[in-house]
Amino acid sequence: MNILDIIDKKEKNEKLTKKELQYVIDNYLNGTIKDYQMSAFLTEIDLLGLSDEETIDLTDIMLHSGKILNLGFDNIADKHSTGGVGDKTTIVLAPLVASLGVKIAKMSGRGLGHTGGTIDKLEAIKGFQTSMSLDKFKNQVNQIGIALVGSMGNLVPADKKIYALRDVTGTVDSVPLIASSIMSKKLASGASNIVIDLKVGSGALVNDLTDAKKLAHLMVKIGQKNNKKTACVLTNMDEPLGYAVGNSLEVIEAINTLKGNGPKDLTNLVIKLASLMTSASLNIAEKEAEEKVKENLYNGKAYQKMLEWVKAQGGDINSIQIADNKKIITSDKEGYINKIDALEIGKLARKLGAGRLNKDDQIDLTVGIVLKHKVGDYVEKDEPLAEIYYNSKQITNQELLSCYNITKEKPKTPKLIIDIIK
Amino acid sequence: MNILDIIDKKEKNEKLTKKELQYVIDNYLNGTIKDYQMSAFLTEIDLLGLSDEETIDLTDIMLHSGKILNLGFDNIADKHSTGGVGDKTTIVLAPLVASLGVKIAKMSGRGLGHTGGTIDKLEAIKGFQTSMSLDKFKNQVNQIGIALVGSMGNLVPADKKIYALRDVTGTVDSVPLIASSIMSKKLASGASNIVIDLKVGSGALVNDLTDAKKLAHLMVKIGQKNNKKTACVLTNMDEPLGYAVGNSLEVIEAINTLKGNGPKDLTNLVIKLASLMTSASLNIAEKEAEEKVKENLYNGKAYQKMLEWVKAQGGDINSIQIADNKKIITSDKEGYINKIDALEIGKLARKLGAGRLNKDDQIDLTVGIVLKHKVGDYVEKDEPLAEIYYNSKQITNQELLSCYNITKEKPKTPKLIIDIIK
Repeated sequence: MNILDIIDKKEKNEKLTKKELQYVIDNYLNGTIKDYQMSAFLTEIDLLGLSDEETIDLTDIMLHSGKILNLGFDNIADKHSTGGVGDKTTIVLAPLVASLGVKIAKMSGRGLGHTGGTIDKLEAIKGFQTSMSLDKFKNQVNQIGIALVGSMGNLVPADKKIYALRDVTGTVDSVPLIASSIMSKKLASGASNIVIDLKVGSGALVNDLTDAKKLAHLMVKIGQKNNKKTACVLTNMDEPLGYAVGNSLEVIEAINTLKGNGPKDLTNLVIKLASLMTSASLNIAEKEAEEKVKENLYNGKAYQKMLEWVKAQGGDINSIQIADNKKIITSDKEGYINKIDALEIGKLARKLGAGRLNKDDQIDLTVGIVLKHKVGDYVEKDEPLAEIYYNSKQITNQELLSCYNITKEKPKTPKLIIDIIK
Repeated sequence: MNILDIIDKKEKNEKLTKKELQYVIDNYLNGTIKDYQMSAFLTEIDLLGLSDEETIDLTDIMLHSGKILNLGFDNIADKHSTGGVGDKTTIVLAPLVASLGVKIAKMSGRGLGHTGGTIDKLEAIKGFQTSMSLDKFKNQVNQIGIALVGSMGNLVPADKKIYALRDVTGTVDSVPLIASSIMSKKLASGASNIVIDLKVGSGALVNDLTDAKKLAHLMVKIGQKNNKKTACVLTNMDEPLGYAVGNSLEVIEAINTLKGNGPKDLTNLVIKLASLMTSASLNIAEKEAEEKVKENLYNGKAYQKMLEWVKAQGGDINSIQIADNKKIITSDKEGYINKIDALEIGKLARKLGAGRLNKDDQIDLTVGIVLKHKVGDYVEKDEPLAEIYYNSKQITNQELLSCYNITKEKPKTPKLIIDIIK
């Protein structure tokens, strides 16, 4: 077996055996297969696809390329988001579900996007520790039912190496490569019930609904093949989620949501995801789960769990710093907001310092944008559209205004939850 | 402009502008674009193709990536072969055409194939110099009408770097990449009349006739676009050309052919290629050119030109060394030879030491295989099939016999010249 023969075979679009896929991953990890050869192979997959069976094999091989966590708990629930602008869902969802007795033992990432990842956002809470030993992690889950860290152990080294290469070779948008990357990581983290929030739209990894559905079905199939309850929720990411974009600002919005005062879209999304996770983990009907979820969201128990969680990881919930400088940008015309471009808002937040362009960039956790309206709202001329929290880096009014499309026609209210596949 | 956007654009199979192609080549040569990114881009081209216009642009950009030779002669004729087993055509063709007053100022390569390239083969003549200064090269062409060297100056550096990458990433068989590689080199070498011997079959770069025709039309189009008379001859490479495979052995067969005693297939091929080159260069009808070619092949003038040429480059035509050890392998059955697998014979010659597996391998010029028959011949059991000339490395009888298919049915005589496109 050699890589050139495998590249040739894939070029003819012949089905690859699990042995051949194993050969590629093993030898890429040990350095025998070079980056430029792996890049040719990944490009072929990007252009020609993989069969479901090949993708399941590939995921399994990647999963076994490193350690697989066994935390010793049954019924751990996990949620993964493919990432979007203003996505603070995990920070609401995790304590909410934990408050219902579902175990949350989660690993999250830092962001190489327009704003930070969940780990960055949580670090906006002064003192919050995002790394700990495996023993402490297990103890915390055992005691309060929730723990969340950056990364733990050598999980899925194949994905780490392949993802870094995909990032610089134009192969991030391949459905089978996304599926194997996400699912190998979820399977390695030891959860038995997996919910994936698959964002679709201008601010998301996947722009096209057909591709998104294909990806969703594939991930659910991989999960089920591995005896995990898996559901995939397709959600709209054409406009930012909630109002706040930027690390500290998003944590504050998450806390408000846990107190029952969150934005409608974020609250509804959290209820849906929490119901799916709770239903799977407690083995109850989704309807019943939804009632419990809403109860704890509005009776203060979810917020109580958040306080417990933050305290357990060393954080001070009352110490979240926001940039001193604030400027309000107002609308230059009246009309209905037809569009708030999520991707462009994300880029502006990054311009303020809220996100990274390169892996080693320092994030300013205190800056960001708080929108005052959602798509469908009517605004008067000179009415505030957004508050900008900034330090040294600024954005212009025009930059923000160009993210908006305001017209006389009232748009259809966008549907947040597009589809649920399980 | 950046490489990821260009990779994305190509993924959507949108037409690339000349500026974009220029960006890729410039930045690959200066190291900004990495091997793994170029590999993704080349793989896309391999799978999705390029339009004729893009290929013409790419060729032009590669051509101008280095020096373009201007030797100061009008009407230089050049021939390129895509390479095959037993292909000693240049060594016969060059002096034959030169003997008719056509200027030959040629660069040839060493082989990274089953046997050496033309330069390796010529070095089997003791003393033959395959490198010289540009001035000496020009003088020799001026004085005796023929000179041949290994490489001269920094011609087409883009092809050198890209070819090395294609070789290790499974992208050697892409029609537009082959066309731009061959034609940029031919155009850079300053010839005005170009004949390409495009081998088709098991022992050739291109196995498929449809692909071969596409490639031929494309190369002719590129040549004509650059105001060069260009013809492409598609020739069979299912069985080796002539009888001899191995460097010294092939030179001896070439000399015999120049004396009018060559194998029928090699002789016919040389006459066809020489007629095309002579017709284009002397501006006469192909029929008239063919008469002149045959005349000089049989009246000794072509061989006289060979003697002049070898002397001018310091070689001693009487000093060509062949390995001392010879073994004869005989047929294990009687019947008609239906197949002699060119590729496998080539690999056996390499096993004897006649070719390179890696760029730095040393070739043994004295070893090789001399076939005693061609496809279509009838052989008795125990009749000799081949003579093996060897030194330290050997091949077994069985290895040779497995290259043959001998049956009771007489096969159709294979057609050597499949098509001529010009």
